[in-house]
Amino acid sequence: MGLPKVIDIVHGGGGREMWEVIESLVVSRVPEKFKRVMGGIGLESLDDGAAIRIGDVYVVISIDSFTVKPIFFPGGNLGSLAASGSINDLLMMGAKPIAAMDALVVEAGTPSETIEKIIQSFIDVMTSEGVAIIGGDFKVMPHGQLDTAIMTVTGIGIAEHLIVDTNIRVGDKIVVTGPIAEHGAAIIAAQMGYSDKIKIVSDSKPLTKIMLPLLEKYGKYIRAARDPTRGGLAATLTEWASSANASIVIERCRIPIKQEVSHFLEMLGIDPLNVACEGVAVLAVDPEVADDVVKELRSLGAQEAEIIGEVRTPKNPVLRGKVIAITEIGGATIVEPQAAPVPRIC
Amino acid sequence: MGLPKVIDIVHGGGGREMWEVIESLVVSRVPEKFKRVMGGIGLESLDDGAAIRIGDVYVVISIDSFTVKPIFFPGGNLGSLAASGSINDLLMMGAKPIAAMDALVVEAGTPSETIEKIIQSFIDVMTSEGVAIIGGDFKVMPHGQLDTAIMTVTGIGIAEHLIVDTNIRVGDKIVVTGPIAEHGAAIIAAQMGYSDKIKIVSDSKPLTKIMLPLLEKYGKYIRAARDPTRGGLAATLTEWASSANASIVIERCRIPIKQEVSHFLEMLGIDPLNVACEGVAVLAVDPEVADDVVKELRSLGAQEAEIIGEVRTPKNPVLRGKVIAITEIGGATIVEPQAAPVPRIC
Repeated sequence: MGLPKVIDIVHGGGGREMWEVIESLVVSRVPEKFKRVMGGIGLESLDDGAAIRIGDVYVVISIDSFTVKPIFFPGGNLGSLAASGSINDLLMMGAKPIAAMDALVVEAGTPSETIEKIIQSFIDVMTSEGVAIIGGDFKVMPHGQLDTAIMTVTGIGIAEHLIVDTNIRVGDKIVVTGPIAEHGAAIIAAQMGYSDKIKIVSDSKPLTKIMLPLLEKYGKYIRAARDPTRGGLAATLTEWASSANASIVIERCRIPIKQEVSHFLEMLGIDPLNVACEGVAVLAVDPEVADDVVKELRSLGAQEAEIIGEVRTPKNPVLRGKVIAITEIGGATIVEPQAAPVPRIC
Repeated sequence: MGLPKVIDIVHGGGGREMWEVIESLVVSRVPEKFKRVMGGIGLESLDDGAAIRIGDVYVVISIDSFTVKPIFFPGGNLGSLAASGSINDLLMMGAKPIAAMDALVVEAGTPSETIEKIIQSFIDVMTSEGVAIIGGDFKVMPHGQLDTAIMTVTGIGIAEHLIVDTNIRVGDKIVVTGPIAEHGAAIIAAQMGYSDKIKIVSDSKPLTKIMLPLLEKYGKYIRAARDPTRGGLAATLTEWASSANASIVIERCRIPIKQEVSHFLEMLGIDPLNVACEGVAVLAVDPEVADDVVKELRSLGAQEAEIIGEVRTPKNPVLRGKVIAITEIGGATIVEPQAAPVPRIC
């Protein structure tokens, strides 16, 4: 606990170490009354975004700095990732994404063509989802002071009802909308120089076309929603288990994952539950409608949507706040949230 | 015009080259209908922020990546600069700042104490101005891939009436709220290693306490407002002259500037009009009330507020869109917007 002497890679990895540093560096320093405004959601939620109530609606706002390396990877690039990630952050709070602003910082000496492709991809994803680009910033740092580029995006959405993680209850079913760990696995492969040999493609994509109709039809039954990026499913579910003061029990055999992703990560000794997704939502759903939600998701194109587990009151109180994975052969292990296995995943 | 082969320092400097790259890389690529939403202000304005109309009010949103080097400089640091700059962006659009979100990217190996000080300064400035911190992001890049830290801030404000630069008319008086060029001069001195010898302090500060009462009393008479950061007064006034299709004539002897700043920049051959301010507003004001506005500003603590010039229809059409400076001995020169003299000014 507390602050380490220096900030290290692990403190940006989405695991427990990151949350400790954020708590100590930021959250604990902001006076309580300055953590939110106007009946909205603020810093206390540690959520993907924040919300401000204006009249009858919530304005939902997200911010995310994207540092992915390599900038071009199988399945996307810095620009498409930044657009998809920001759109998904808004959707996970129950908002319809309407606008975005981007701040790009570029290393001097970067070919204009590189930046052109990134920005074009950003614009293509945003406009294909009906999101306007209403402003931005552009800075250049001297050669050698930044490795190529960082893109920070603010997403702006409108919600009538917010989805907040604190509503999770015992009995809720845990649903994922598609195969996990593909983005992280693609980046690990690329950073290790395996992209030519191992054909793993990032799942990076906006979830608008799945999530907006789902919210419309089942919004009030969705107790929590998150895109499990840095830290993967393990980090998201551990947070949820903590917030519900319960256990989340998942069955490994029900978690959708592509064979090549699973094999590649197994070879490296990495648990896919700790690996980032960028085009998957995990939902906590009222058990009454969980099967219907999965059917609806499949009909919307998320063919591999699946109920992977549920929220339970553990017999042993030491398991409160923990995620328990039932293995393929029936054993049970506690899943610990861990930092991303490589830096600059997203 | 058009895109250069590589992005270079000059393209982030706030001068003509930057606007050409932004036009070519971003603005020209976003389809017209995706440049704004809901009766607000969007990409077309190239303003400090954007606005979305919701019910009876505008939600004003700014984004800015701060890359200043050194991170600690006389008069402030990355965190206080990011907070002040974001607050000022909102004020210049006529909005009351209410909330902010920050995304911090840190180089691995940076002492926690450095980051602690930056974040504490950010929180101190924001909360002293009544601005809540409602969310954020935290990333770490490997040692050697980023020079220390970048902080990106999204500011959120509420406005009943927006100030938009396109309202400037011939006859409007140009008012500055205080001495210019201090931030840029302090950073240049620090980057050159002169901070010990030359006592120039950045003017970086939030303008809330001056601008909110001024907007309350004279809001409808303020035709345009801007904090002249990168590119300095020259860039802001040239943009305004273009948007009004007129000339802006300023008198050098009326522009407030501290003697040490003026001498230091003169020694380096740098025109203070091209040097960034971070705690000064420049306003275009209805001539009927310009003297009253200056009096009000002085009573609010901006003791060196001054009318420095006015918007005129030039006799020679070639002077449309130009800024003309009357020199101390009565000559007239055209002021060209130029990139900041050193990188990482803000």
